[in-house]
Amino acid sequence: MKKIGVAILGLGVVGSGTYKILTEHREFYKRTQDIDISVESVLELRKERALALGIAPCAIAESMAEICSNPEIDIVVEVMGGVEPAKSFVLSALRAGKSVVTSNKELFCKYSHELEKAAKKNNCGLYYEASCVGGVPVIRSLLDNLQGNKILSIMGIINGTTNFILTRMTEKGASYREVLKEAQLLGYAEADSTADVEGYDAAYKLSILSSLAFHTKIPYTEIYREGISKVNQTDISYAHKLGYTIKLLAIGKCGGNGIEVRVHPSLIKSEHPLASVKDSYNAVFVTGDSVQDVMLYGRGAGALPTGSAIVGDIIYCATHPVARYSTFKNTEKADAATKFVTNFESAYYLRLSASDKAGVLSKITSILSKNGISVDQVIQDKERVDGKVPIILVTHVTKENNVKKAVADINAVDNVASVDSIIRVVS
Amino acid sequence: MKKIGVAILGLGVVGSGTYKILTEHREFYKRTQDIDISVESVLELRKERALALGIAPCAIAESMAEICSNPEIDIVVEVMGGVEPAKSFVLSALRAGKSVVTSNKELFCKYSHELEKAAKKNNCGLYYEASCVGGVPVIRSLLDNLQGNKILSIMGIINGTTNFILTRMTEKGASYREVLKEAQLLGYAEADSTADVEGYDAAYKLSILSSLAFHTKIPYTEIYREGISKVNQTDISYAHKLGYTIKLLAIGKCGGNGIEVRVHPSLIKSEHPLASVKDSYNAVFVTGDSVQDVMLYGRGAGALPTGSAIVGDIIYCATHPVARYSTFKNTEKADAATKFVTNFESAYYLRLSASDKAGVLSKITSILSKNGISVDQVIQDKERVDGKVPIILVTHVTKENNVKKAVADINAVDNVASVDSIIRVVS
Repeated sequence: MKKIGVAILGLGVVGSGTYKILTEHREFYKRTQDIDISVESVLELRKERALALGIAPCAIAESMAEICSNPEIDIVVEVMGGVEPAKSFVLSALRAGKSVVTSNKELFCKYSHELEKAAKKNNCGLYYEASCVGGVPVIRSLLDNLQGNKILSIMGIINGTTNFILTRMTEKGASYREVLKEAQLLGYAEADSTADVEGYDAAYKLSILSSLAFHTKIPYTEIYREGISKVNQTDISYAHKLGYTIKLLAIGKCGGNGIEVRVHPSLIKSEHPLASVKDSYNAVFVTGDSVQDVMLYGRGAGALPTGSAIVGDIIYCATHPVARYSTFKNTEKADAATKFVTNFESAYYLRLSASDKAGVLSKITSILSKNGISVDQVIQDKERVDGKVPIILVTHVTKENNVKKAVADINAVDNVASVDSIIRVVS
Repeated sequence: MKKIGVAILGLGVVGSGTYKILTEHREFYKRTQDIDISVESVLELRKERALALGIAPCAIAESMAEICSNPEIDIVVEVMGGVEPAKSFVLSALRAGKSVVTSNKELFCKYSHELEKAAKKNNCGLYYEASCVGGVPVIRSLLDNLQGNKILSIMGIINGTTNFILTRMTEKGASYREVLKEAQLLGYAEADSTADVEGYDAAYKLSILSSLAFHTKIPYTEIYREGISKVNQTDISYAHKLGYTIKLLAIGKCGGNGIEVRVHPSLIKSEHPLASVKDSYNAVFVTGDSVQDVMLYGRGAGALPTGSAIVGDIIYCATHPVARYSTFKNTEKADAATKFVTNFESAYYLRLSASDKAGVLSKITSILSKNGISVDQVIQDKERVDGKVPIILVTHVTKENNVKKAVADINAVDNVASVDSIIRVVS
């Protein structure tokens, strides 16, 4: 029976979950996979964490060098998060001939080119299923299942914190601030929630997923990013009336004009499968030219779900002796030939406050029309707010720049109307 | 660049779709996968089909022997369906050292042990992602992603025809017979619809999926099977009132008492993700001890979605030089150590016609109670049908045998009540 020695770097939530799965399932993997996986070493400054998990003191490494020089270790699991020291540790593991399994989306998104170069040079594997959408098998599905397709689009709810917040706001009618506090108390959001609520986390994951989907490096810096902190009850409630749910979607499309990649709050039809992805669940909706629509759904985070992806990669690495590398051009920057579309095509939800005078709606729709925008749905609400009436419009598909121009034009007309919310409508 | 020659056996719906994908994407695969895949040969008695696809007459094989002896062919794609001659052809391909990709659930379900033995002996790959749930990556997810989990249950809508019929019955209020006819006209159901509507197709797929999930051969003959031909509007409508949707579910569970495998119409809570899987879409809901719930959703059939799975396997075979085989005990029959549970635990939906007399409900619930069944929900409808009142009960979780006994007891009480429908309730 093949023996595989593993070292785990970092015993936070995911590291501890991975340790538990590996130790509790050791006999199960011997029986079902014909491999004996043992955790030979851990690297964790807070030694009490290791001891609390029942790890023998002699298995707690003093340094990364100790792990690199340990011949019993075949695979290094990096679950520390952040760029440094994770990056140096991963590079040194690869240089020492150890394969690496990582859950670190920020590291992989920013430095996949460097890491993969080192992996290739040292004939090691580099696996990162756990970097995106926890236990949901999206990366290997793109690499090993849907690889016969030209992927037309990926659309995902790929951040659990924001989906929890938006679900609670929708179901309980609570404000963004209230729900954010609740999420922090429950451990679903960190004290500094910026990376989640402003869409950075989703953008890192979208960078990885869209690079795989579209076979070329999509740096996260090319991704349009807008968080959920401006989403409010008023818009959630009007969206509902119009048959939509508001979700933070990460969207990648590849078409004739180029690639567009964006993370932003979106109105999505309430009957779309993504609309019913609730709480901290995640899902990725992939459209390929042959497979048509596929959705992969599950827990996007957590000790055991993400641990499941890590362990899946460990077993894959142990049972597939020839390492494979990216099927995308894994460069630092985007390839010169890659065109990015920034003047997106989308439908839009616009909420305006308008003076309660005759002809206002006509003035607004005339400005929209001049800018090439036609209207699909309108609600003109009777309830005045601060002496103004809310007008809610859903446009047909148009160009981003047309909307920007129209909004500027509307806002410029004295005292007639102001645009309070602009949210893209996704279909 | 690696060159891969493919032969396709059968140019029906899936074979033609596969041919189209491979030929239209040849340059794409050169660029993204660094392999040149060419269809070298096809085996199809109806030669006009091959010619209509633009296949050169010299590429239409006269016999399987011709394909086996062609050194240009590395991979044989079997998309003929049925056991023979598919089985003989697959075996002869494997014996000739060709790897095989198949979409044939009946063949794989019944003869996986023989086919795999031949594949191993000849050091060839044997791939069958397309045999279950079309383009949805469920088999490789079980093998290569979720393999670190003890799978607790799989629950799937894995037959497109029956899901189309039940969706139409639910949404349009039409009868089973009417919708079956419509499905046949649309090409969603075959003239002889037995394999689909009586659950054989789903049982073949469940046999394959549960063998993978539970690491031991689950012969389809061990699967309890009940089709949808008795599902009617009355039950669909009461289910809806109670908050449920009726679906044909394929269920595999592995617990302390053993393995239970069953295909039957089921009431599932309308907010469960499987309840919103409509029309010919399919989905598999997998629960693992680490990953928790994962759902994989997409088109379960069709030329291009199933072709996507076939082509995914071809590329996987071409890019993973070392073939891997089942992680389940691939025997002809179930292992002697495998225990099958037939006295299922489930909640039940019962619809009765009762005499409109005082004390009837009490008599019925007393019989249920004597058989260890407690009631969760009741509807006693006022509307008489043939002088009887309908009583609808949803029980708490109980044992299959308790329900059988209770139903016999109720039916035995003269003129009091008869049980018209029994449907399992799944959560």
